[in-house]
Amino acid sequence: MNELLIIKIGGNVIDHSEKLSAFLAILSKLPQQKVLVHGGGKLATELSSRLNIPTQMIDGRRITDAETLKIATMVYAGLVNKQIVAQLQSLGSNALGLTGADGNIILAQKRDKGNIDYGFVGDVLEDGVNVNFLQSLIDQNILPVVSPITHDGKGQLLNTNADTIAATLAQNLTKQYKVTLIYCFEKAGVLENPEDDNSVIPVINTENFANLKSSGIVSGGMLPKLENCFASISQGVSEVYICQAESLANWGKSEFVGTKLIA
Amino acid sequence: MNELLIIKIGGNVIDHSEKLSAFLAILSKLPQQKVLVHGGGKLATELSSRLNIPTQMIDGRRITDAETLKIATMVYAGLVNKQIVAQLQSLGSNALGLTGADGNIILAQKRDKGNIDYGFVGDVLEDGVNVNFLQSLIDQNILPVVSPITHDGKGQLLNTNADTIAATLAQNLTKQYKVTLIYCFEKAGVLENPEDDNSVIPVINTENFANLKSSGIVSGGMLPKLENCFASISQGVSEVYICQAESLANWGKSEFVGTKLIA
Repeated sequence: MNELLIIKIGGNVIDHSEKLSAFLAILSKLPQQKVLVHGGGKLATELSSRLNIPTQMIDGRRITDAETLKIATMVYAGLVNKQIVAQLQSLGSNALGLTGADGNIILAQKRDKGNIDYGFVGDVLEDGVNVNFLQSLIDQNILPVVSPITHDGKGQLLNTNADTIAATLAQNLTKQYKVTLIYCFEKAGVLENPEDDNSVIPVINTENFANLKSSGIVSGGMLPKLENCFASISQGVSEVYICQAESLANWGKSEFVGTKLIA
Repeated sequence: MNELLIIKIGGNVIDHSEKLSAFLAILSKLPQQKVLVHGGGKLATELSSRLNIPTQMIDGRRITDAETLKIATMVYAGLVNKQIVAQLQSLGSNALGLTGADGNIILAQKRDKGNIDYGFVGDVLEDGVNVNFLQSLIDQNILPVVSPITHDGKGQLLNTNADTIAATLAQNLTKQYKVTLIYCFEKAGVLENPEDDNSVIPVINTENFANLKSSGIVSGGMLPKLENCFASISQGVSEVYICQAESLANWGKSEFVGTKLIA
């Protein structure tokens, strides 16, 4: 079974063209087959503000109204995605930019209204990943670059969380590949002390995750993130890594700094 | 040899969502394998104006500076392309949106400066079409939807004329398919009298094209358009059609209204 790396790169790197170029250079040198999932960054918010489109927030969460979805589609699926693809091509990686609508790779449904209408936000359907087509791309040595826009199959594009897309793709490709999921984010990894970047916890397994939760070392926004990672592992993803973008250069080596999550 | 239709849809249809939906419904019903190439429309100009990005013109031609290229990438490769893809998916056509950078399908070079610097405008390289990858998509029953953005292989995206992209793709796929090129534009076809939409010339061949030129019936902007069409035919494209978007519904039938160009 071939190895496949699903790598998620967050907005903080997308927002800095030099950091992004450095990251893409590292990525293109990894010999494994890969899928890149990218977030949005601040560009969409900036563009909305330049166009005087108000950001609607309910309970601290941004609402994707029709105008905001257009901006997200332009920035994520257009500018950010295509700049990444063109750069990867220049680095010798045959990248192909995709939304969930392209080749119907990710089918989602508009989030149920419940109490809050989040607008055009999509949750990926359980059997919504077009595994065959993704496999045909990967096996042609193509590097899919996935933006956080999906569709509902009825003509509607939907804004979708990039972390979730990365996890869903990873979980759905475990029958075809030995999948490793790597989240590149701001911090050096899961930290023993959130103020100290040198306190990276190198390995967390299901057992010590329970201890880290009960002791309160892992809390706040990191808790659901790690719970999602362990859910991916229980779905057959071999390993999940959480590290900084620059650390990807040492991934698989002893010098690697970051947190490895295993069963 | 399988038939392949390369269909170009222009900005006038892109700008009207109802016309665009009607066109896509017609397109999705054609049983042949297809590639769709779309132009830009007024959205990019509108967005530039809302963002106070001045349109630079030299000798009546628009200059694609860095900011204008970003807008073009957002609107053409992002919003327009993905809205078309999502709609085609809802119509049962497995569409996949592409720029020239995606899968390296169209390699271009920045136009030589000469007297005028057009900015980030790309001319497709003679051997710049990735025929194998396009064929692999088409043979998986995927409908490539190509936006008028290409790349230079060195990380630079480039704005490229959609008519030229359609012609170049058509010419490069003649070894694999019996290619028909269809330009959908504002007028009903090539007109005997430009003021009379009922004066469509049904067939033009190389011989009567010479007569139409010398008599002045074909002149102005139509002349280079037709010359490019005949160049495609001389490169192995079977037939070229020029018609309105709505006429595509009758393509191949006796009711069809439009101009057919043949050798």
